[in-house]
Amino acid sequence: MTKQEPTTENKAQKTALKIRPQVPPPPEGASDVLRAAVSKSASGEARFGEIPQSDDEWLAFIAAFNNPLVEGIRGMVAQSPITVERDEIEGVAVYHVIPDEIDPVHKDHLFVHIHGGAYILGGGEACVGEAIAIALGTKMRALSIDYRMAPRHPYPAAVDDVVTVYRHLMKQRPARSMAMGGSSAGGGLTLSVVQRLIEMDVDVPGALFVGTPGSDLSGTGDTFYTNQGVDRNISTYKGIIEAMVRLYADGRDLKDPLISPIYGDFHGFPPTILATGTRDLFLSNTIRTHIKLRQAGAVADILVYEGVSHGDYLHELASPESQHFLEELDRFFIQHLQFAPKTAALMMERMNSALNLSLGLDRSESP
Amino acid sequence: MTKQEPTTENKAQKTALKIRPQVPPPPEGASDVLRAAVSKSASGEARFGEIPQSDDEWLAFIAAFNNPLVEGIRGMVAQSPITVERDEIEGVAVYHVIPDEIDPVHKDHLFVHIHGGAYILGGGEACVGEAIAIALGTKMRALSIDYRMAPRHPYPAAVDDVVTVYRHLMKQRPARSMAMGGSSAGGGLTLSVVQRLIEMDVDVPGALFVGTPGSDLSGTGDTFYTNQGVDRNISTYKGIIEAMVRLYADGRDLKDPLISPIYGDFHGFPPTILATGTRDLFLSNTIRTHIKLRQAGAVADILVYEGVSHGDYLHELASPESQHFLEELDRFFIQHLQFAPKTAALMMERMNSALNLSLGLDRSESP
Repeated sequence: MTKQEPTTENKAQKTALKIRPQVPPPPEGASDVLRAAVSKSASGEARFGEIPQSDDEWLAFIAAFNNPLVEGIRGMVAQSPITVERDEIEGVAVYHVIPDEIDPVHKDHLFVHIHGGAYILGGGEACVGEAIAIALGTKMRALSIDYRMAPRHPYPAAVDDVVTVYRHLMKQRPARSMAMGGSSAGGGLTLSVVQRLIEMDVDVPGALFVGTPGSDLSGTGDTFYTNQGVDRNISTYKGIIEAMVRLYADGRDLKDPLISPIYGDFHGFPPTILATGTRDLFLSNTIRTHIKLRQAGAVADILVYEGVSHGDYLHELASPESQHFLEELDRFFIQHLQFAPKTAALMMERMNSALNLSLGLDRSESP
Repeated sequence: MTKQEPTTENKAQKTALKIRPQVPPPPEGASDVLRAAVSKSASGEARFGEIPQSDDEWLAFIAAFNNPLVEGIRGMVAQSPITVERDEIEGVAVYHVIPDEIDPVHKDHLFVHIHGGAYILGGGEACVGEAIAIALGTKMRALSIDYRMAPRHPYPAAVDDVVTVYRHLMKQRPARSMAMGGSSAGGGLTLSVVQRLIEMDVDVPGALFVGTPGSDLSGTGDTFYTNQGVDRNISTYKGIIEAMVRLYADGRDLKDPLISPIYGDFHGFPPTILATGTRDLFLSNTIRTHIKLRQAGAVADILVYEGVSHGDYLHELASPESQHFLEELDRFFIQHLQFAPKTAALMMERMNSALNLSLGLDRSESP
């Protein structure tokens, strides 16, 4: 093909490309519910204010963020067939999140929930929001860990607290009867905890849920650029997010594998399901984690939803996207968590009658 | 949180967000090989010239695009342990792509390859490039179909040709011993063909590879916006790509499920592996197809690579990303394609000796 002089049209197109639209149009390929929600609040720019400059300013910032969340959660609990109870395990605050109806298949299972919030936000009573959605969606018990956070308790307090609670739970139940996970910092912390467990030679959980994880806290990754100003929940890494991450890191390099688990080792990881979306600022974080897990030989599935920003797969619970995500999570946990022998026998019995198992396939027929 | 007056810093940040960088910096999270390649040719803007205005201009455009491809392929074949032979099946041109070394596990398997090129480009001898990479990477025989294309042969010629060849192959081998697939238009055409087969009640292949598919040819999807000017292989849907698609559609609505299979039915699809990347203009096309397949109950895995533009998972064959992708494809085909009983027995024997199967687990021990 011979080289051509750029025409006026070509030049105009080049200029147009340089100033791409700030936010794509409402996602036509998404469900009606999600598209309506995205259309109403397309941009995440105004969500966070200025960066606090002292511990007191941080604590005020945290309270201002958490208080409306707690109100929302209390309303949700009041209207839902679920009980939430605060407790302590070896000095760490936890919340038992117990749906009224437990699916028999999950009778022996526990979802150990690690909340998000950039290692700063979403603590206290605010920690249980995602656990409630997952417990109701899968009809499975959850335990949400209110781990210590910055500014008062930077790394490694969060990892220490989750490991303490998990090891305590291991005295009561098999490791493989537990799933662990969460979104954003909760996904990143899940990865850090499992890397620590493997290093300590402690049995890992039976399955992980790693949603849009803070696996690389240094701001490295394509979608920190391509989805800047596109993600409706976190518009950019620059500014408040980076400031929160630095509080957690407490002077450590942000590429230290202890802070950004993407730079750590994924060998020995249990089956992991990941979730993200096309507008997610952490899309790169999520897909890089997925490929690293598979390269290390782990079973790892990823779900990437059209029109979904950071964490949106669980922000619009009425959307078909959220319903599909919860069904996938449920199926993944059923597939990979360990049943007690009694439950396994019960499930097998049910499956057999459901399949109307022909006598010809019965074991008694074999020699 | 109280509303704050925007500070000068906030205003500056808002303006900065509106003019996002044209192309993200070299992908730090990608391999050295891929990053070097991406750094050298970061933008796909200049790749295509002006839109041809007549059939003759189109044919000249096609020849100018294909000829260097053919040169490259001839060089590759000359240097590689592989044979490529042209043939015809029921009037349709095909190429047998046979690596010197066939993996015994793939002895009974055939990869039916559907090339890309927006239903216009990449025909004739140019069609075999991807088939060669996959045949060499998996040590498996391939057959690449040189289906008829626009402008002379718009829809449904391409679908007809692939169905004709596939049904002919079914007379020689079980459907489930064949994998089918390709990238871009090749991925979209694979989906259209399988939808047609299911409608005709013909057995589907044992597995599909659907790379960055043209599943929605109407330009609908978030990443047509977020990755516009970012993808180094196809910069934008507007212009030449849309013009090629319209030639194929031949007056049909671009959202007609016959043209854009994303709007069709995915029930009954065989296990499918999909591939894309963070810079792919067709990232939305790929993830939407993945979710639709899973919602329809199909087994569907997706690989999303950092820093990878449209089709780049097979453009830098020396990169760890391409090597990983080919390993995943190989494993997926081994897992889902049917073996002849003799091969299955051979594989089982090998597996047993590899596992050094303990006598305690031998069947003869059971009552």
